[in-house]
Amino acid sequence: MGEFDLIARYFKRPAKRSPLGVGDDCALLAPAAGMQLAVSSDMLVEGRHFLSTVEPARLGHKALAVNLSDLAACGAKPLAFTLALALPGVDEPWLEGFSRGLLALADAHGCELVGGDTTRGPLNICITVFGEVPAGAALLRSGARAGDDIWVSGTPGEARLALEVFRGTIALPADAFDTARRRMEQPTPRVALGQALRGIATSAVDVSDGLIGDLGHILASSGVGATLDVDAATALISVDTGNLGEELRRTCALSGGDDYELVFTAPASARNAVGQAGMDSSTRVTRIGRIEADAGLRIVDAAGAPVSQRFGSFDHFV
Amino acid sequence: MGEFDLIARYFKRPAKRSPLGVGDDCALLAPAAGMQLAVSSDMLVEGRHFLSTVEPARLGHKALAVNLSDLAACGAKPLAFTLALALPGVDEPWLEGFSRGLLALADAHGCELVGGDTTRGPLNICITVFGEVPAGAALLRSGARAGDDIWVSGTPGEARLALEVFRGTIALPADAFDTARRRMEQPTPRVALGQALRGIATSAVDVSDGLIGDLGHILASSGVGATLDVDAATALISVDTGNLGEELRRTCALSGGDDYELVFTAPASARNAVGQAGMDSSTRVTRIGRIEADAGLRIVDAAGAPVSQRFGSFDHFV
Repeated sequence: MGEFDLIARYFKRPAKRSPLGVGDDCALLAPAAGMQLAVSSDMLVEGRHFLSTVEPARLGHKALAVNLSDLAACGAKPLAFTLALALPGVDEPWLEGFSRGLLALADAHGCELVGGDTTRGPLNICITVFGEVPAGAALLRSGARAGDDIWVSGTPGEARLALEVFRGTIALPADAFDTARRRMEQPTPRVALGQALRGIATSAVDVSDGLIGDLGHILASSGVGATLDVDAATALISVDTGNLGEELRRTCALSGGDDYELVFTAPASARNAVGQAGMDSSTRVTRIGRIEADAGLRIVDAAGAPVSQRFGSFDHFV
Repeated sequence: MGEFDLIARYFKRPAKRSPLGVGDDCALLAPAAGMQLAVSSDMLVEGRHFLSTVEPARLGHKALAVNLSDLAACGAKPLAFTLALALPGVDEPWLEGFSRGLLALADAHGCELVGGDTTRGPLNICITVFGEVPAGAALLRSGARAGDDIWVSGTPGEARLALEVFRGTIALPADAFDTARRRMEQPTPRVALGQALRGIATSAVDVSDGLIGDLGHILASSGVGATLDVDAATALISVDTGNLGEELRRTCALSGGDDYELVFTAPASARNAVGQAGMDSSTRVTRIGRIEADAGLRIVDAAGAPVSQRFGSFDHFV
């Protein structure tokens, strides 16, 4: 199968909303008047962002989900995406599964595949996603203010549990592993929540490298510090972790990435509005800390006592 | 050096025109009223799109040039781009050269780096570029009509000569090799010509896989055929090819890719306008054939006699 047949069979579909889709030198997008275009690009490499054992359909889902998660963190509505794909060869069952998972999530969010590139090479998936947001309404990392609450969506830390099982460092009951594995391999981008938080949240980021590391981006961009309640975050892990110790559960909750939950801040006066945004988007939201003027991140337990355990963050080069 | 230091040192610059650049979950673009956004994505893999021997600065240039070339083929004006980069490790001299070549070309076209991704993995460069074009004015592949002239910019075929030297199949005089190698490693995207052809050309494509293969996209999309003068195309090769035979020169002209010239069509009544567009953009433009109603591509010599030599086109998977 040649390059153009491959594109036609697995990735070419008629563009419905975009003026021009797959098959010309460029795709054309027409943002509505008064809208800004939010753009994000993520590259997934085997062995770093996914294991070779992952089902192709789940991988297709995840490749788009991590990009939609960036739109969610900006409060943007998905519009379209491009897919650049390096493949070691033409593996039709893989392409069938990958494109099925990818396009199912795209359809669920009304996000059109409008173009891209295919080439031979070590497996590499690069998606660039486009969303729209009213001018001036995007959620940024830089808007957190002292006194704001810190919130997190969903159940961060479960993807990391699955990774630790794959690494062989822990064991989980079968049901718990299945749930955690799905969280790692097929994360749910919080697209509806992100849009519901426009005008309410003062800052937001999606958790890809770990809750602490990504919250750190908000603190640095906003020039503030924070106190975080490790027990409130750890309690969100809802899968049965059997006899695993609390230290490991805390590590998963605070350092685990790959859940693609949103961490965001909002004034204490907006607690009801945040709760409503969570309900409107069918997404659990939980307060886990508070922004403070003093720089640095202070981690405390439910009783307010400092926690001495150290938590890391993921970095591709250290 | 960590991931975020790497980005800060080599790739983070203040956004001048875009509302939000590198360093948040998304970048924000604000196309002017009445403009559509042209989007293209290209992925470059070592050994397929470039040789490991290429100077990093030239590679940085080329990685953006092939994307700007897609904007040129649509008649779009460059605005911004994202860069996703998989690197085997942190090689500072390589990063310094690569980013220097990349950003020099970006500055020359007023095209801002607004975001992207870095990860560890086999070397892979994926750029997505954004340009603007008045609604309805983009040059498409589908507009060629019987009777149109076929034009090409510049001197297609020279990049292929350099590739054949690297492959060891031919030798070139030193000066000629140096020129041809620069054409392959540091192509000039025909951005100004593309914009000058808006309202004049009926279709356009950029030549990445070979003149015949890419012209074939115009023919297929437009539902037309063509007759191409191989001698008119081959005569454009301006480097000294010494004692190489005409057959090899023809192969380079018609099957050679990687020159990133534009092939475009325009009515015969627009010949002066095309010539003026070439002059306004300081780009040589040459008529090399004619669009016809009969499907298929007929290749003839300067005397109009059919040429029996077969010419291929590049495909990553066959």
